[in-house]
Amino acid sequence: MNKIFQKLEENFQFPIIEKVVTVRTNICAKYLKFKVQELSVYEMNERDRSSPAFLKLSQKSTNSLGDLVPFTNKIYTGDLQKRIGITAGLCILIQNVPEKKGDRYEAVYSFYFGDYGHITVQGQYLTYADTYLAVTGGTGIFEGVSGQVKLQQLIFPFKLFYTFYLKGIPDLPQELLGQAVAPSPTVEPTAAAKACEPGSTIANYTQ
Amino acid sequence: MNKIFQKLEENFQFPIIEKVVTVRTNICAKYLKFKVQELSVYEMNERDRSSPAFLKLSQKSTNSLGDLVPFTNKIYTGDLQKRIGITAGLCILIQNVPEKKGDRYEAVYSFYFGDYGHITVQGQYLTYADTYLAVTGGTGIFEGVSGQVKLQQLIFPFKLFYTFYLKGIPDLPQELLGQAVAPSPTVEPTAAAKACEPGSTIANYTQ
Amino acid sequence: MNKIFQKLEENFQFPIIEKVVTVRTNICAKYLKFKVQELSVYEMNERDRSSPAFLKLSQKSTNSLGDLVPFTNKIYTGDLQKRIGITAGLCILIQNVPEKKGDRYEAVYSFYFGDYGHITVQGQYLTYADTYLAVTGGTGIFEGVSGQVKLQQLIFPFKLFYTFYLKGIPDLPQELLGQAVAPSPTVEPTAAAKACEPGSTIANYTQ
Repeated sequence: MNKIFQKLEENFQFPIIEKVVTVRTNICAKYLKFKVQELSVYEMNERDRSSPAFLKLSQKSTNSLGDLVPFTNKIYTGDLQKRIGITAGLCILIQNVPEKKGDRYEAVYSFYFGDYGHITVQGQYLTYADTYLAVTGGTGIFEGVSGQVKLQQLIFPFKLFYTFYLKGIPDLPQELLGQAVAPSPTVEPTAAAKACEPGSTIANYTQ
Repeated sequence: MNKIFQKLEENFQFPIIEKVVTVRTNICAKYLKFKVQELSVYEMNERDRSSPAFLKLSQKSTNSLGDLVPFTNKIYTGDLQKRIGITAGLCILIQNVPEKKGDRYEAVYSFYFGDYGHITVQGQYLTYADTYLAVTGGTGIFEGVSGQVKLQQLIFPFKLFYTFYLKGIPDLPQELLGQAVAPSPTVEPTAAAKACEPGSTIANYTQ
Repeated sequence: MNKIFQKLEENFQFPIIEKVVTVRTNICAKYLKFKVQELSVYEMNERDRSSPAFLKLSQKSTNSLGDLVPFTNKIYTGDLQKRIGITAGLCILIQNVPEKKGDRYEAVYSFYFGDYGHITVQGQYLTYADTYLAVTGGTGIFEGVSGQVKLQQLIFPFKLFYTFYLKGIPDLPQELLGQAVAPSPTVEPTAAAKACEPGSTIANYTQ
C-alpha cells in the first residue's frame, strides 16, 4: 500500500500533474482563502464613556508625536437595529498635518461583538480622510480571520462607518448582515438599540 | 499541450466539477487550515522584573481610561518543567467596572519562546473573568500562525494559565507539549525550571 | 445527481482517498500558503520628523519599563532608488539589559507604502541585536498577508534594514523588488529619492 502512495507522490513531480494541481489550487483559493465577506458596523461616541482620553504627553501646544489617545466607543450593526458592543484601543499621534488641518494617528484597537467574539485591527487613522486598516486577528466566530476594513468618518470624531472585508472564516450570522443604512452625518441607531432593549442587542453585547 | 490545460480549466466551470472541488476543498480545509494545535503556557509574575509599571496618566483616583500598564512576566511550559521565556507588552485601561469590582483592559503583547520565536496576541483582559485573545502573528516556528488563546486567571495579577489554539503552522516540538499541570492558584514551576538550570529551560530561553 | 455527490462524499472517508487528499493538500500548501516573497526595505531617521518622542514615564534614571517611545521614520526601497513612505508606531520599553549595554523594546508599528497599502508588525526590538518581528496584517496589495520580517540595525537608531518574508498575497510589483543594496552603515538613498523627485517615489508615497 505504501508503495502506491510513494508512486503517487512521485507522480506529483510531473509537470502535467503540477499544472492540474495549480488549477485546482486556484479554485481552492477562490473558495477557501479568497472568499470575502462584507460586514458593516457603525461606531458612535455618545459622550457617556469618558472617551477619548487625550494624553498630552508631547508637552507641545500643537498635536505632536508623543501624544497618546486611548479610546472606547459603542458599536452598532450596519442597519442600526442592534447594539453590538464596543471598540477599545489606542491612537498614537504620529504627526500634525497643517495643510490638511488635521492629524495622522497610528491606531491599534479591537471591535467587541459580545458572545460572537472580537476583531483586532491596526493602521492609519487620519482625521481628514477615509482610510483602510488591517484586520490582524479575531476570536470566536472571527477566529483566524484576515482581511482589511474601510474606515469612513461621518462626524469627527464621534460617528464612523466601517466596512470589513473578511476572509478565512465561516459564514457570518444573519443578524450582523442586515442592509446597512447609507452612511451620513445624521444617521442614528434606533431608540431601542440605543436603549439596549431586549431584541435590540446581540447576545451578551459588550458593555 | 496548452490546449489540454485550457480544456481542463474550462471543465472546472462545470457544476459537477465545482461540486467535486468544493468537497475536496472542505477536506483540504480540514487538514490545512483548520488543523488546530493546542499549546499550554503558564505566566508568572515572580516580582523580580519591576513589572507591571502602572502609569496613572488619567490623573483620576479610580482606574480610568488614560491609564497605561506596560508589563513583562516569565513564562513556563504547561507541565511546569521548563522556563520558556517572557511576555512583554502593554495593557490599556479601558474602563473600571464597579459591579464586577474590576477593570477592563485592551492588551497588546507577545510571548517569547527563546530560539523557537514568538507569538503576538491582542484582546480583552478582564481582571474578573477569563477571556479569549486573538493570535495575530508569530516568528520562527510560529511564523504565519493564526488562532486564539484562552486566558485563565489563577491569582490576579500574578499567575495566569493560557491555552493557545494555533493554526497554519507545522507540528509543535514535543518539549512544549508535555501534559499540562491542572491550573490552580497553588501551582508552581519546578525548582529547576525556576532556577533556569540546564535541561530545565528551552534553548536560549528569553530572559 | 445528489446521490452521486453523496456517494462521492462518502468515498472521501476511505483511508486511500484521505491519503490522496493529504498529498494534494501538501502540494496545495506549497503553492498557496507557503509561497514566500522577499521584500527589502530601508528605514531612515533623517532627523526631520521630530522622532522619536522618548516619553520618560518610568521616572527612573535608567531606561525602564514604563518608558514609551512613539516614532515615525522614512522608508525607501531596498535598491534605495525610491521613497516608499513612512513607519509609524510605538516602542514599549521592556527592560534595560546592562550586560548588553542596551534595551529590549516591544514594538508595534506599520510600514506605509503609499497607494500600495500598508503592513503591520509586532515583536521585539533589541538595541544590541538583529531580530525577527511578526507580520500581523496589511491592506491594499498586502491585504491578508502573513509572515515575518528580519530587522537589521545598521546605525542605532537611525538606519535599519528589513527583509520581509511574506505569504498569502499576489506577486509584488517590480518597483519594490529591485536588487537590494547590501546593508552597511554608509548606505544612503539616491539624492533624487531623498528629494522625492518625480520618478523617485512610488505612487502617492506616504508623507
